[in-house]
Amino acid sequence: MSEKPHALSTDPYKGVRDFYPEDMYVLSYIIETMREATERFGYLEYGASLLEPAELYEAKTGDEIVNQEMYTLTDQGERRIALRPEMTPTLARLVAKRRLELGFPIRLFSIPNVFRYERPQRGRLREHWQLNADIFGVESIEAEYDVIALAAHIMHSFGASDADFRIHVSDRGVTQALYDHLNLSEETRIAVGRIIDRKAKIDAATFHSQLTEALSDEAAVETVCSVVEAEAVEALPQEIRDTDAAHRLDALLETLKRRGIANVVPDLSIVRGFDYYTGPVFEVFDTHPDNNRSLFGGGRYDNLLEIFDAEPVPAVGFGMGDVTIRDFLETHNLVPHYTATTDLFLCTIADGSREHAQQLADDLRAQGVNVEVNLADKKVGDQVKLADKHAIPFVICIGEREMETHEYTLKALASGSERVVTADAIADALYEMWQSDPLDYTP
Amino acid sequence: MSEKPHALSTDPYKGVRDFYPEDMYVLSYIIETMREATERFGYLEYGASLLEPAELYEAKTGDEIVNQEMYTLTDQGERRIALRPEMTPTLARLVAKRRLELGFPIRLFSIPNVFRYERPQRGRLREHWQLNADIFGVESIEAEYDVIALAAHIMHSFGASDADFRIHVSDRGVTQALYDHLNLSEETRIAVGRIIDRKAKIDAATFHSQLTEALSDEAAVETVCSVVEAEAVEALPQEIRDTDAAHRLDALLETLKRRGIANVVPDLSIVRGFDYYTGPVFEVFDTHPDNNRSLFGGGRYDNLLEIFDAEPVPAVGFGMGDVTIRDFLETHNLVPHYTATTDLFLCTIADGSREHAQQLADDLRAQGVNVEVNLADKKVGDQVKLADKHAIPFVICIGEREMETHEYTLKALASGSERVVTADAIADALYEMWQSDPLDYTP
Repeated sequence: MSEKPHALSTDPYKGVRDFYPEDMYVLSYIIETMREATERFGYLEYGASLLEPAELYEAKTGDEIVNQEMYTLTDQGERRIALRPEMTPTLARLVAKRRLELGFPIRLFSIPNVFRYERPQRGRLREHWQLNADIFGVESIEAEYDVIALAAHIMHSFGASDADFRIHVSDRGVTQALYDHLNLSEETRIAVGRIIDRKAKIDAATFHSQLTEALSDEAAVETVCSVVEAEAVEALPQEIRDTDAAHRLDALLETLKRRGIANVVPDLSIVRGFDYYTGPVFEVFDTHPDNNRSLFGGGRYDNLLEIFDAEPVPAVGFGMGDVTIRDFLETHNLVPHYTATTDLFLCTIADGSREHAQQLADDLRAQGVNVEVNLADKKVGDQVKLADKHAIPFVICIGEREMETHEYTLKALASGSERVVTADAIADALYEMWQSDPLDYTP
Repeated sequence: MSEKPHALSTDPYKGVRDFYPEDMYVLSYIIETMREATERFGYLEYGASLLEPAELYEAKTGDEIVNQEMYTLTDQGERRIALRPEMTPTLARLVAKRRLELGFPIRLFSIPNVFRYERPQRGRLREHWQLNADIFGVESIEAEYDVIALAAHIMHSFGASDADFRIHVSDRGVTQALYDHLNLSEETRIAVGRIIDRKAKIDAATFHSQLTEALSDEAAVETVCSVVEAEAVEALPQEIRDTDAAHRLDALLETLKRRGIANVVPDLSIVRGFDYYTGPVFEVFDTHPDNNRSLFGGGRYDNLLEIFDAEPVPAVGFGMGDVTIRDFLETHNLVPHYTATTDLFLCTIADGSREHAQQLADDLRAQGVNVEVNLADKKVGDQVKLADKHAIPFVICIGEREMETHEYTLKALASGSERVVTADAIADALYEMWQSDPLDYTP
């Protein structure tokens, strides 16, 4: 043991978060809501280590991430490893490895933490948790319908109404058709793509002047604008509207609306950062003026298995992060009120009452009640205060009378209401008192 | 995007695991069983990033871990960071930061992944998941009773009987009293401690000869042996038995037995690797001859907050890893049978039946049923085979008759039993068929 010359800081590493119980409650709520909603749609959960060979991300991902934003280290065996910046390459690796055994189509999901070295700011941290939901083995837009329906279902599960968010749908194929139509060089495509990607963040004049600079052709600028501003597939220029990609986009929008997903719009300005997308892409936006931004998105990536020299398998998926979802929930006042997972605190106020409390606690635990027994030498008032501070909704005080009569006064701390019950009636009484006053107690 | 000259490997990084759905099922079962059991005892969940300043582990932990086994990296801001090798220093950091606001005693738990660079072998990987359950603010052995009772409860929750595991309890204070009694130098204490730590792995003669070499005093060797082999506190040499630490150990053993924890034995050969333990320590052993080893353990560490220059807060806790627990469950045939979280697969066999299936799926999902709709162009037999391959317990085939009559044949794939039901009776029928044949379907 080495002596340290200075005291250690109690702060976490920059850009990551500590989760005290009330913070963990919100993270768990977000993760469990995502998990339950995704399982409802028949997705199966997988997982993997966050440590991956670094070259997995160098093969086919955004350059920006690989060069500037990825955490890498070299282990003692001289292997270059990375902390995963995203989950899709890992999922592609798992699918490629068992391509012949998995059985397609297969719906898969995971809720991993992912890492990026970037300046911490609103909605962006160095570590966040991200639902990844993907379908492998479906070439048709039925896969897009399924993942977009799931995305909407998750938003509804968080308590959002259709008015709170809007689903913007684009198609990489339409963008390619536009570039082909304009005969753009590879270099110009990249430059124009970056300008389009920034469109929501810059004003119309700047957007127009940047496009003019990149294209040096006013007619081409007008064509690009007419595409990225089109509010319907029919509004696209004829040469673009007649492509397979535009027909696919039209069919997807029509299918979504016919099956009840109303808050969906075409938006050809949606680009998405990753290079691996090959077809339809989508982003979900918050419609609230205080948080008018993209929340999450995804798309089709049919060729990613090629990096493993495996036969391609068509794939569609999306990623949804906990930080932007928490911002959304806060903006719309949808964050649940914190209550401890502990249901009941047993105060001990007489000689021998701890032994009695431990026995009662064991009996109640066997009935599914989460029980804490006081272990402190505190007065009863301070014990109750501690239970309240820890957001435990119910208390029972064990004194001489209770040890003699085996009758207990169950008290709800938020409302102050009380009930006198025998031991075997405590679990039911807890449930009934919660039902009569649900704000005090979320199970 | 850079062109890769070779195909990437589909293997994970050495010493970490991929979790396909059937593997994830077991990991989730282990984690959820730990979580539910720990919440039952009133512990509140916290969390933190696995990235921590490296110096957090250099202050007070086993040298071996810091020097050889820790993953470290330097970020672009020249900060030295580590992937946490254990959770206790992080927990101490969180408690020190809010020492004045948390309210003691407080029971806290987390189920983080932790990292060690070591040669992968049975029960040891480079990344594993580990329940950490701790009580802060209790000086008395009531805290030890509580965490040991929780440890036994978790083992029972996994289906283990008292005969399947044994709790070995020691006390650092007794070991210190022994060293004081023998007037050992600091250097000799460390050497003797390491020999005792290896006792279970070496034969009696080797143990004896190594002690003789370290102590150069046959009487001292006999005293050490009489302590580490004592099967009761009364069997300790008088000078050790009369210390406060020995009385504390005796009282703890007596309290555990009186309150119903029978499978507990004193074992002064229990050392535990970490330097921060200050009092009672314990380890839980598998009693099965095929897996006769330590599964997990913990102890009291009253001074760890000192590394933050914070007032000490008494603390007791333990860590329980998923890899050793899985080995235990496999040894005792306690690993649950895999079934998908998806309850029902809807086959589509006629024109227009996909639209019908999607509507039925939405209705069933609103009732809490996890439903997958077929998206493939496969014959009905192949659709059923796919559902079975994915371990989905129930199927319904949607053809022209079903679209007309709205009556559906619900089939349990494992037993082959069938029931014809209307849409609004499907959820109840699923539940009843599961109850009548529970092996086919674990909800």
